[in-house]
Amino acid sequence: MAHSEAQAARRRRSGGRAGHAQRRGVAAIEQAPWRQPINIDAPTEPMSPEAVGRMHEAVMRILEEIGIEFLHPEAARLLAEAGAEVTGSNVRMDRGMVMEHLATAPECFTITPRNPDRMITVGGRSLLFGCVSSPPNYRDMEIGRKVPGTRRHCRELLMLSQYFNCIHFLGGYPVEPVDLHPSTRHLDVLYDKLTLSDKPMHAYSLGPERIEDAMEMVRIAGGLSEEDFAATPRMYTNINSTSPLKHDWPMLDGWMRMARRGQALVVTPFTLAGAMAPVTMAGAVAQSLAEALSAAVLAQVIRPGAPTAIGTFTSNVDMKSGAPAFGTPEYMRATQMTGQMARHYRLPMRASGACTANVPDAQAMWETEHSLWSAIQSGAQMVYHAAGWLEGGLIASPEKFVMDCEVLGQLIRYMDTEISEVNDTTLALDAIAEVGPSGHFFGCQHTQDRYTTAFHSPFLSDWKNHEAWMAAGGVWTAERAHLVFRRIVESFEPPAMDIAIREELDSFVARRKAEGGAPTEF
Amino acid sequence: MAHSEAQAARRRRSGGRAGHAQRRGVAAIEQAPWRQPINIDAPTEPMSPEAVGRMHEAVMRILEEIGIEFLHPEAARLLAEAGAEVTGSNVRMDRGMVMEHLATAPECFTITPRNPDRMITVGGRSLLFGCVSSPPNYRDMEIGRKVPGTRRHCRELLMLSQYFNCIHFLGGYPVEPVDLHPSTRHLDVLYDKLTLSDKPMHAYSLGPERIEDAMEMVRIAGGLSEEDFAATPRMYTNINSTSPLKHDWPMLDGWMRMARRGQALVVTPFTLAGAMAPVTMAGAVAQSLAEALSAAVLAQVIRPGAPTAIGTFTSNVDMKSGAPAFGTPEYMRATQMTGQMARHYRLPMRASGACTANVPDAQAMWETEHSLWSAIQSGAQMVYHAAGWLEGGLIASPEKFVMDCEVLGQLIRYMDTEISEVNDTTLALDAIAEVGPSGHFFGCQHTQDRYTTAFHSPFLSDWKNHEAWMAAGGVWTAERAHLVFRRIVESFEPPAMDIAIREELDSFVARRKAEGGAPTEF
Repeated sequence: MAHSEAQAARRRRSGGRAGHAQRRGVAAIEQAPWRQPINIDAPTEPMSPEAVGRMHEAVMRILEEIGIEFLHPEAARLLAEAGAEVTGSNVRMDRGMVMEHLATAPECFTITPRNPDRMITVGGRSLLFGCVSSPPNYRDMEIGRKVPGTRRHCRELLMLSQYFNCIHFLGGYPVEPVDLHPSTRHLDVLYDKLTLSDKPMHAYSLGPERIEDAMEMVRIAGGLSEEDFAATPRMYTNINSTSPLKHDWPMLDGWMRMARRGQALVVTPFTLAGAMAPVTMAGAVAQSLAEALSAAVLAQVIRPGAPTAIGTFTSNVDMKSGAPAFGTPEYMRATQMTGQMARHYRLPMRASGACTANVPDAQAMWETEHSLWSAIQSGAQMVYHAAGWLEGGLIASPEKFVMDCEVLGQLIRYMDTEISEVNDTTLALDAIAEVGPSGHFFGCQHTQDRYTTAFHSPFLSDWKNHEAWMAAGGVWTAERAHLVFRRIVESFEPPAMDIAIREELDSFVARRKAEGGAPTEF
Repeated sequence: MAHSEAQAARRRRSGGRAGHAQRRGVAAIEQAPWRQPINIDAPTEPMSPEAVGRMHEAVMRILEEIGIEFLHPEAARLLAEAGAEVTGSNVRMDRGMVMEHLATAPECFTITPRNPDRMITVGGRSLLFGCVSSPPNYRDMEIGRKVPGTRRHCRELLMLSQYFNCIHFLGGYPVEPVDLHPSTRHLDVLYDKLTLSDKPMHAYSLGPERIEDAMEMVRIAGGLSEEDFAATPRMYTNINSTSPLKHDWPMLDGWMRMARRGQALVVTPFTLAGAMAPVTMAGAVAQSLAEALSAAVLAQVIRPGAPTAIGTFTSNVDMKSGAPAFGTPEYMRATQMTGQMARHYRLPMRASGACTANVPDAQAMWETEHSLWSAIQSGAQMVYHAAGWLEGGLIASPEKFVMDCEVLGQLIRYMDTEISEVNDTTLALDAIAEVGPSGHFFGCQHTQDRYTTAFHSPFLSDWKNHEAWMAAGGVWTAERAHLVFRRIVESFEPPAMDIAIREELDSFVARRKAEGGAPTEF
């Protein structure tokens, strides 16, 4: 495929500029408007009620008898004050304490970004998609190989995240811009995120300075007072436990700072069955839940009612090589099982659109489809990495991003109750009688009244027959996605931002850079 | 991608023969044993019970008031004798008659091929996958373009169908071998099917001669008396109504002959919403059901208890071009709605693994995933075209076949209750306590006891990291699938067949060819 990537590159170089000029002022693609879909499907529940009970019992016993390491003395102290048994960094909590504090967590919360029209609701049957987050590397069809991420790549992926209406929230860096100095990287990327997008923001919990800078920049970008900022969630963080059974200092520090200011919290253990968790999925899920719930309890201890969601990232490894795999049958069931337990604990949930494939090909899509379907089947409200992820999260790919958005658009449409509405109009007996046994429905009034809106229109799928497809160049999907990616980036227009706010952001970034940014070692 | 296909071809030409010699006697791939999965997931039901009632009412009114054309006088006569109102070829049946006859159809039936170990059960929660059926064209990565199907292509696809344990039944011709004369094509292909495979057989309902030849050949291949053949279903046919509202003569003729001899029957209307059916999915599903049920009633009139399933092939067209599309959100919901109605009528159901894509790329897989998931969610027991289909059924692709079998293997594993079993052993609290917060699970006894069987092993997915994948040639999935395809075909060993039976088949084919085969016009 290296050759075809070179072809795509040649096409770009020769035709790109002219194409760009022609396209100015027209939409890069046609897409459905932004909206928050409702997951209308009943969740898939592989566990019986009795199995849920056994799982709960195991989770509680891990928390009571084995305990979780909290590598942050203040966190351990706060939990001890709330009734936990603390030995060094080991924190054991009895189920009474756990359930009492989980009960104060809301079943549903909102995150309001600088554009309040892009507010998202996390909980209940909401279904929200976020872009790829945190790969160190980048690959596109023009470059044709894996390269370290740069600010340009990061900015372009942010443009895609803003552009696509099926993306509801931003994750961490869509690719790590390693050309930016680590001590000030967070300032530059958050500046890019806030100026290129008006959707809900994520901040990394990587020590005090980064998270405080992030909260301050989100506050400035929203034109908010300190009080307004803290009045409702404006952003969120995601922490990963260091499985097995451990929460690290930088993550806990950010977690606690965000909790204190009422910002949204997501805790996602990364429990690979057979590596960082038991080889059996029940054990891996139980451990993941214990790790997640222990952080949720901490949040509630700090601020009862703190908006808190638990995530799952339980998958399996290839037992021959130890390599992690995503979208596997085991991954799917673990996600669904976690969904059952999230409902048991009445907490919102996060899942992912993950895959193991190295390139945006057939394998990438079947793995991602399995991840996405298990997210939907689990009832997860937030789906991270729903667009753009490859190689188990080590590569960000703009073509994969575009492909994923095609699928997400279809899934959003799939959740439209209109499709399966059954009434006299949709049953169309009159039209069936009118057309009879030898006609067709193209011309009848029932069709004419509806044909422009009856079906979802894809922007990337090629539905031409083989002859027409060949005549149009016989372009495979990954290469078509590359062209869409370039078109979007070249015609991208950032959302409006008040000039005074922008200047305030500018000077905040300049000041913090002058101060040296954040430490790069913990 | 033309370049990379040429590369694949070069690799084949230079390395194929040596590779073949090396591989003799070793399995082409590792795969799980043949078994019939049970669909353990609750079906997805987009219609409320009230909507199911309204849908039923509409279906009955189509049958009662509008009627279905039966372009076979004997069929119309039989239905008239059973109480239908017949005007020319128009047959109207009241709901009393319809429901009385549907009540005699079994909820579950078996099909027993010449190897009784490959018997399949159609009904209840069974989930069975069949290979691609009936594309006129073929495309593989070596040829690199669409070509008319030949007997060689057809035979190779049959080898794949037999080889893969995830394929439970054969469909029609996996590609139409247009190099064989139409009057005797059915004899040659059925001979190939029966000698290359021992799985359940399909026969086309294309007039009396073909279906009688097929039944006779299946009888011979099974070493069965006339009586034994008719004692239980040995094979099946699938008929498509000519939507809207019409059953053609050749289809009905085969249908009635198969019904008389107690063979399995599947009727699948092809109702493209907006073309051959109403633009609204409820109307398209209602029409499809009316067409299907009318044929099911005919089967029950002929032979109460005849094993009968209804199929769905309701999708939508691209309203700009009129081109059919598959795996769309509308397709998914229509499939699930049909599943609800199949349960309402207590009939087994057939769905498909369909896509619109022209090549085995990312689009092909997301479309196929959507089709497959809707089949699973609908509770369909038979999934046609589950491997190898491209371009809306106009192209058979061996690489797509191999990719699909990778996915089917995963879905079969996904249905394994073992994954989500929750008990003391799988919860593994002792292992979690043993490993504690700073170890890993690779070495512990709980892992060692299970690691070889804990997870599904794929045969096509590449889980290497990008560096290792590049070092191994950076081969995209479609090209890897091509290599697997060639390996299977080159090492294929047909299932055992008694020499006397083979000779009887040989002479049957020779005699029927000498007689001129079947007419090629109806």
